[in-house]
Amino acid sequence: MISTLQSRMLRGADGDPAPRLAYGADYNPEQWPRDVWEEDVRLMREAGVTVVSVGIFSWARIQPGPDIWDFGWLDEVMDLLHAGGIGVDLATATASPPPWLTTAHPEILPVTANGETLWPGARQHWRPTSPVFREHALRLVREIAGRYKDHPALVAWHVSNELGCHNIYDFSDDAARAFRLWLRARYGTLEALNHAWGTAFWSQRYSDWEQILPPRLAASHPNPTQQLDFKRFSSDALKDHLVAEREILREITPGVPVTTNFMVMGGTKGMNYPDWADETDFVSNDHYVHPGPQDRDELSFSANLVSGIAGGRPWFLMEHSTSAVNWQPVNVAKRPGDLARDSLLHVAHGADAVCFFQWRQSVAGAEKYHSAMVPHAGADSDLFRAVVDLGATLKTLAPVAGSEREAAAVGILYDWESWWAAEQDSHPTSLLDYRREALDWYSALLALGVRADLVTTRADLSRHQVLIAPVLHVVPAELAKDLTRYVEQGGHLVTTYFSGVVDENDHVWLGGYPGALRELLGIRVEEFGPLLAGESVELDDSTRGSLWTDQITLADGDTEVLAHYRSGVHAGRPAVTRRSTGDGSASYVSTRLGVDGLRSLLPRLLDPAGVSSELPPQARGPVELTVRRGPGGRFLFLVNRTDETVPVPGFDGEVLLGARDAEGSLVLGPREVAVLRRPAA
Amino acid sequence: MISTLQSRMLRGADGDPAPRLAYGADYNPEQWPRDVWEEDVRLMREAGVTVVSVGIFSWARIQPGPDIWDFGWLDEVMDLLHAGGIGVDLATATASPPPWLTTAHPEILPVTANGETLWPGARQHWRPTSPVFREHALRLVREIAGRYKDHPALVAWHVSNELGCHNIYDFSDDAARAFRLWLRARYGTLEALNHAWGTAFWSQRYSDWEQILPPRLAASHPNPTQQLDFKRFSSDALKDHLVAEREILREITPGVPVTTNFMVMGGTKGMNYPDWADETDFVSNDHYVHPGPQDRDELSFSANLVSGIAGGRPWFLMEHSTSAVNWQPVNVAKRPGDLARDSLLHVAHGADAVCFFQWRQSVAGAEKYHSAMVPHAGADSDLFRAVVDLGATLKTLAPVAGSEREAAAVGILYDWESWWAAEQDSHPTSLLDYRREALDWYSALLALGVRADLVTTRADLSRHQVLIAPVLHVVPAELAKDLTRYVEQGGHLVTTYFSGVVDENDHVWLGGYPGALRELLGIRVEEFGPLLAGESVELDDSTRGSLWTDQITLADGDTEVLAHYRSGVHAGRPAVTRRSTGDGSASYVSTRLGVDGLRSLLPRLLDPAGVSSELPPQARGPVELTVRRGPGGRFLFLVNRTDETVPVPGFDGEVLLGARDAEGSLVLGPREVAVLRRPAA
Amino acid sequence: MISTLQSRMLRGADGDPAPRLAYGADYNPEQWPRDVWEEDVRLMREAGVTVVSVGIFSWARIQPGPDIWDFGWLDEVMDLLHAGGIGVDLATATASPPPWLTTAHPEILPVTANGETLWPGARQHWRPTSPVFREHALRLVREIAGRYKDHPALVAWHVSNELGCHNIYDFSDDAARAFRLWLRARYGTLEALNHAWGTAFWSQRYSDWEQILPPRLAASHPNPTQQLDFKRFSSDALKDHLVAEREILREITPGVPVTTNFMVMGGTKGMNYPDWADETDFVSNDHYVHPGPQDRDELSFSANLVSGIAGGRPWFLMEHSTSAVNWQPVNVAKRPGDLARDSLLHVAHGADAVCFFQWRQSVAGAEKYHSAMVPHAGADSDLFRAVVDLGATLKTLAPVAGSEREAAAVGILYDWESWWAAEQDSHPTSLLDYRREALDWYSALLALGVRADLVTTRADLSRHQVLIAPVLHVVPAELAKDLTRYVEQGGHLVTTYFSGVVDENDHVWLGGYPGALRELLGIRVEEFGPLLAGESVELDDSTRGSLWTDQITLADGDTEVLAHYRSGVHAGRPAVTRRSTGDGSASYVSTRLGVDGLRSLLPRLLDPAGVSSELPPQARGPVELTVRRGPGGRFLFLVNRTDETVPVPGFDGEVLLGARDAEGSLVLGPREVAVLRRPAA
Repeated sequence: MISTLQSRMLRGADGDPAPRLAYGADYNPEQWPRDVWEEDVRLMREAGVTVVSVGIFSWARIQPGPDIWDFGWLDEVMDLLHAGGIGVDLATATASPPPWLTTAHPEILPVTANGETLWPGARQHWRPTSPVFREHALRLVREIAGRYKDHPALVAWHVSNELGCHNIYDFSDDAARAFRLWLRARYGTLEALNHAWGTAFWSQRYSDWEQILPPRLAASHPNPTQQLDFKRFSSDALKDHLVAEREILREITPGVPVTTNFMVMGGTKGMNYPDWADETDFVSNDHYVHPGPQDRDELSFSANLVSGIAGGRPWFLMEHSTSAVNWQPVNVAKRPGDLARDSLLHVAHGADAVCFFQWRQSVAGAEKYHSAMVPHAGADSDLFRAVVDLGATLKTLAPVAGSEREAAAVGILYDWESWWAAEQDSHPTSLLDYRREALDWYSALLALGVRADLVTTRADLSRHQVLIAPVLHVVPAELAKDLTRYVEQGGHLVTTYFSGVVDENDHVWLGGYPGALRELLGIRVEEFGPLLAGESVELDDSTRGSLWTDQITLADGDTEVLAHYRSGVHAGRPAVTRRSTGDGSASYVSTRLGVDGLRSLLPRLLDPAGVSSELPPQARGPVELTVRRGPGGRFLFLVNRTDETVPVPGFDGEVLLGARDAEGSLVLGPREVAVLRRPAA
Repeated sequence: MISTLQSRMLRGADGDPAPRLAYGADYNPEQWPRDVWEEDVRLMREAGVTVVSVGIFSWARIQPGPDIWDFGWLDEVMDLLHAGGIGVDLATATASPPPWLTTAHPEILPVTANGETLWPGARQHWRPTSPVFREHALRLVREIAGRYKDHPALVAWHVSNELGCHNIYDFSDDAARAFRLWLRARYGTLEALNHAWGTAFWSQRYSDWEQILPPRLAASHPNPTQQLDFKRFSSDALKDHLVAEREILREITPGVPVTTNFMVMGGTKGMNYPDWADETDFVSNDHYVHPGPQDRDELSFSANLVSGIAGGRPWFLMEHSTSAVNWQPVNVAKRPGDLARDSLLHVAHGADAVCFFQWRQSVAGAEKYHSAMVPHAGADSDLFRAVVDLGATLKTLAPVAGSEREAAAVGILYDWESWWAAEQDSHPTSLLDYRREALDWYSALLALGVRADLVTTRADLSRHQVLIAPVLHVVPAELAKDLTRYVEQGGHLVTTYFSGVVDENDHVWLGGYPGALRELLGIRVEEFGPLLAGESVELDDSTRGSLWTDQITLADGDTEVLAHYRSGVHAGRPAVTRRSTGDGSASYVSTRLGVDGLRSLLPRLLDPAGVSSELPPQARGPVELTVRRGPGGRFLFLVNRTDETVPVPGFDGEVLLGARDAEGSLVLGPREVAVLRRPAA
Repeated sequence: MISTLQSRMLRGADGDPAPRLAYGADYNPEQWPRDVWEEDVRLMREAGVTVVSVGIFSWARIQPGPDIWDFGWLDEVMDLLHAGGIGVDLATATASPPPWLTTAHPEILPVTANGETLWPGARQHWRPTSPVFREHALRLVREIAGRYKDHPALVAWHVSNELGCHNIYDFSDDAARAFRLWLRARYGTLEALNHAWGTAFWSQRYSDWEQILPPRLAASHPNPTQQLDFKRFSSDALKDHLVAEREILREITPGVPVTTNFMVMGGTKGMNYPDWADETDFVSNDHYVHPGPQDRDELSFSANLVSGIAGGRPWFLMEHSTSAVNWQPVNVAKRPGDLARDSLLHVAHGADAVCFFQWRQSVAGAEKYHSAMVPHAGADSDLFRAVVDLGATLKTLAPVAGSEREAAAVGILYDWESWWAAEQDSHPTSLLDYRREALDWYSALLALGVRADLVTTRADLSRHQVLIAPVLHVVPAELAKDLTRYVEQGGHLVTTYFSGVVDENDHVWLGGYPGALRELLGIRVEEFGPLLAGESVELDDSTRGSLWTDQITLADGDTEVLAHYRSGVHAGRPAVTRRSTGDGSASYVSTRLGVDGLRSLLPRLLDPAGVSSELPPQARGPVELTVRRGPGGRFLFLVNRTDETVPVPGFDGEVLLGARDAEGSLVLGPREVAVLRRPAA
């Protein structure tokens, strides 16, 4: 997988065959008159662009009618780019069906839970499960692949675009039919489904597969396992579309790698990306900053998680923005320096490409106020000059290309099943936010200068001395065994409130919470104690808990109490516990401590594992450290998280990016990034 | 009615034929493997359970297909319970139609005002007016009643479940047809309907019954009388369903009492329960605490109102919770002691039964996080131990069973018609909250230690020296006469802003507000003065008014001013007035004073009637007092409303529950309840 | 136009043929028994009513079935009014189709963007584009016009009512068909439409007109130009209905003026009234106060804007309220004095009529709590007495009738296209409020005592020394030329952030913002800098900016900086600029300064143009001044904007309304209005 990515994608515009970091954007020449195209290629070369994604939204242009094909313009674009030494990540163009198709086949339009049709006018107005759409989409893929299979500019295939951004949940009759097939495959018998869904409750027992529906608008909370399975099904339905396109591409161009751009960021949770990753030849991601106090922590978190999803291998940043976007309530511009810093932070976490949406800012359409590499103001602009600078920087970092993530001592387990299940309705609290809890742990580790890897349940957990699993809500028996083995073999597990509560069917483990992990943690919780919005309780280590508390009883002589509640209903009872077992331990945090509280608690959780910061004391907090390792050496990225200048003394290595002062200390200007190379050891 | 209830329901699990307070829960054995059932009965006996409701959501299990019946499991459950000495309140199981029925007949699904279908997946997805649903539901009732009519465990029938919780308002074509029939019955002629609805406004004159529709989504505010009649009709349509089921039950088992569980609590206002009460053999209620500063006042208020709906006769607490529920935004657990206190507060207000949803906490389904008598943690838990304790306490209180409410000096009139009408749209303010205003008066009386009865317009008002009628918005001519007679005969009426404004057609009484009560109150209001959110005005008795003011003129020489406005547009004008007439009086409060303001005002309203607290001074406020009276004596309930210990000196009587100190004072621990028996006198 | 208005509308109830200010209300006698009508006419005469609008919602009464007509009652009403000397503005009654019509033709009901039908029950439940509705409506108009064409009471025609209040946006299939025809007319070819809409983006290229739809609920932001064109189309579709009714009326009664009541107030933005104005014989408006800190500024602003829409000619205040309305969240009553002051403020801005909704407050229906000239309390009420007083005042002001607006030195350009376009989705910020920005400039000018005229793009801009164009977002090439010419000829243009950004197709002008005005303003903005909610930046003149900032570069040697940013990302850069050119200048304000900030800035913008307040210093701010000019003289209106008494010394002229003190100063009591007459000069 890496080799394919490297061989085709990581080439320079200057024809240099040595791998380098890719640089580029979505390129939509069909929005511009022909005479702009020449300037585009010229400016791309000026900026050091090596690759562009073409054709993302070109269906209506390529196929203006059911049996009309217009490839001439695209031939010309491909040739022009190739002549300019720029590779093409060619889209299959299925993201947005053309008006003639939706007019002829309105039955491909998605339907909301409330029964509303999603009409054309925007994009992604198609049902993932529509056989009619599938037929037309695959025909298009076959035509495009056939046309360009031998074009020298082609370096990769880009399946559709941001699959599921708007159409992940469709409640149409097509979806109902496909859901039933998926359930048959999962459960085999109706009896098994009735058991898994707990249909004895509220008189929901099915006597025929045809009775089953998606969880459409109901009179009250729909069946939770039906809801959870519909989430699983919806992710699988789109993955199935991805696979269907990919199969055609592999058949026609077996040597060209296939990717599709994930959206690991913010609240995008509909697509189980760890599960999708195997279906691509390399992982790509789109990321956009949501302004807020933790915004760059979130960027780092997302990039880190993409790395985890990619199994530590390098990945492709397919889209981010040079400055403002256009779809937030207020779309703030990036400050000077943000463009490079944000980009390099992705590289620090394994990105081998830095691409933007889009090359040239549109004059019309729904994203005309989305920033681009060439803004409305034109090439004579601060923004384009920063784009050119970044191109040069990325060239300097060519040695990094292809290097992998070097495992950190701390892992944070991020689990889509728990994310989906923990935030369902009819729960103890509707205020629980799975991703926020994980991000808080991540921010606290950043604040301590401790490197951590986001990992998925598919990862080899034993690589981390400490494994933090916040709100690990869904714990099937097998996972409980894995975690127990992890601890028995010396690992230090940390988990939190509402973890280990249900199995894969969303059935509660009985006998006291946290059911599946009760013995491992050596505690027993008889009852949850969620807190009202605004309510908090004090702990005896001076931290404060919100959102949740538990009524904890110690159930094992080896369980010690790291902190008690000082106020609230459970005052005097344990709040944070640790059960040691051999070399390992299992700790439990029963409340939401927030970034500051976790920062205060973490040393007590890390010390027994012998884990501490790899940074010099004055850089712990201000600086984020990541490490990539490849044939060319170990690459240390040091990112200044602050708006102040930060010296980092005593950090040796060859300076690929950045500067040392007279004493040899690295000196990081505000939001600057330094990159060191050390021998691979 | 009482005797039936007593004879069948108020029996102990131990076979003791003497009446006692019933204790139990919804019992859903179909959610559990067969081997759990034995343990269930064993634990029920340990807890002192006397009755369980079975089959609430068993339709799909009992009738797995149109012509398939499976009663075997239920036979076994009934036998097991009977063998354990536990009575069964057997449900008709019509609350949630099975998938096969909604698949075959999607035309039974309710439709929202916006035209959305409410699909299966939750519960109560049926149109109250669907003839197809009615036919299937009644067939089920007939089968169940026929099957178990002679079963010795059967002590009562439980019609459907929480009728109207989710399907009270249905805007389907079935509803339209039924609405027209209801309107024909109410009005006789189109001319009468056109007059009542004021269809001359906005060109809405109907020339054919078929033109009439439910108030579906409209371009602006729909016709108010159409809205009000649709509320009346919707309540009647479900009542009609209740009656239809009941008629079959009465036909088959004339000696078995029939009930259905009301939901007198919080914002449940769609069902006119005073009107429904006559159609049951005894009144049952479900109550759940909504966390907040007035939460236990609200519990007391609701229980008191149920007592009023039941005409002062004992009633059945069919559902409440041992601890947290699962359907609020945050579901807080009960504190130690809440379980008993909440239960006994219902008993204090006339409940002869304390039942919970549900017996054993589910492992799956939408309510798996709803607490139960046996929690997820199992019988070895603080919660189950508290359940057992409560069972013992209820046994101690057996003498109370069957006793009725002893009328209080103060009545608070709670009127569904005014509730519905006063909160409609296109009014002077959308911030008016009928129930909150009534609850504020109730809280203020509690704070003063003055006992009050919630009563409905069907009650004999003359039993109360003081009658408080907050926001009595709808006053038909007949009610105005009744209230006038009440005052003339020496009663002291207190009413408030927005009272007496409209007749039964929601037509304004002309000539100055509060039209229907203008003469009785001796005032005239030319214009309403609603206040903006956050705005308030000062009165010259140092209270503050919000929400509403009136421009009041005294219209009678006998009207005195109890308080003037000190600030605001009406500064210097009357705010609170009283017109005395013979021994009686009629007072008017023109603004929202809130609990504190009413507490300050109330003595001036109560003193002339000679009404004051029956409690010793130090207990006024901390302690709530209720009185039940039966053949076995007068029973005084004293409920500690605080988290402090409260002594109640000088209160004689036999202590059924609680303790006295050395001086003979009752000593109530935090949230404790004491019960005294005195001779019936 | 004026002459027609004067000749028919401006007659007194007393039969005096001299023009006077009209006074009256909507009169809905069909809501009342016959015996009330006599009293109505008697009270109207007592109040000085000269004209009433009749039949607004009488369709169902006039035409109770498809072929049944009932005019008898209306004949009687017309005769009674005529006998009382009261003129009738007769409605065409098409505002609310009767139940028989919607039952027979549900296909006339509007459909929301989400696909919901708007059902009958309220009013305006008709599709503007329905051919079926059109046919029935026009038949009704023809019948009414034919019936009353020669009735002596008839003084004007009132087309429908508040056209578009609830049905301006309809997404039905009828709307789709009409939209396509409108687009064909606008664009001629699909190629032109594809270009204008930028359909190359997101694969939206149309290959057949039939593929085009209204912007119904979509998966993401619908195409912006599609949205903008749908707004234009929707306004035109209702204008087309207005014209269709008018054509019939003109055919049958060529001498009777036709109007329809606009709703220039608050957020009503769907109807492009400047464009509609030409289709009426005189402009009418409805205005209702929304309570808030700028509420009476808004009243003045709206009245001023109506005057601008009417081209400075007198207009008709068709509806406002004597006191509270019924459709706001809280409907506050007017304070004593507000009734007269609000009315006279409209007259000050050119209203030749003061009318109310409605004559007599309804007892039933959705607006029964809307105040009226005769309230529920009856004629014996403060409110009716104030109504009678106002009638007398208006009689005193008869000389004002027919006078026009005298142009102010300052114009504020209010542009519907910019309003629509600037507030669309997918923009830099969703917090931008076009009308609020314009109102803030207006409030700041009021605070300085500087008279300003609201004008539309159809006005002769050269009449104003200073032209303020806030958020002039849409600037087609022609408008850019007009504004450049304006400045070159000595005008002083002031514009703001987000101005000059797009052309008529919502395509961005390239090369740097504010594209179309870049050269005129002598600046260049490379990037917008919207601010988050709650965020603000400081300027070096001590004002604060919120909502927006720009990254400004001076692009012309003649551009000076009036204020710099002191904080924020652009600290040190220009915030407010002015480019002088000959006698004129063009200024740019790049942030939202709010009323206080603009008040501080304005003198620096007005001074170079030699513009200052016409009021004595102590009256600047407390007093609003307007000037009307007619054959009878110049009429100066002085409105006390405060709750204090304000003396206005040194202001000569004949006092038509108000009083002078011993020194000759006008003395304005709280919220009082004075009117002076001076020779026409």
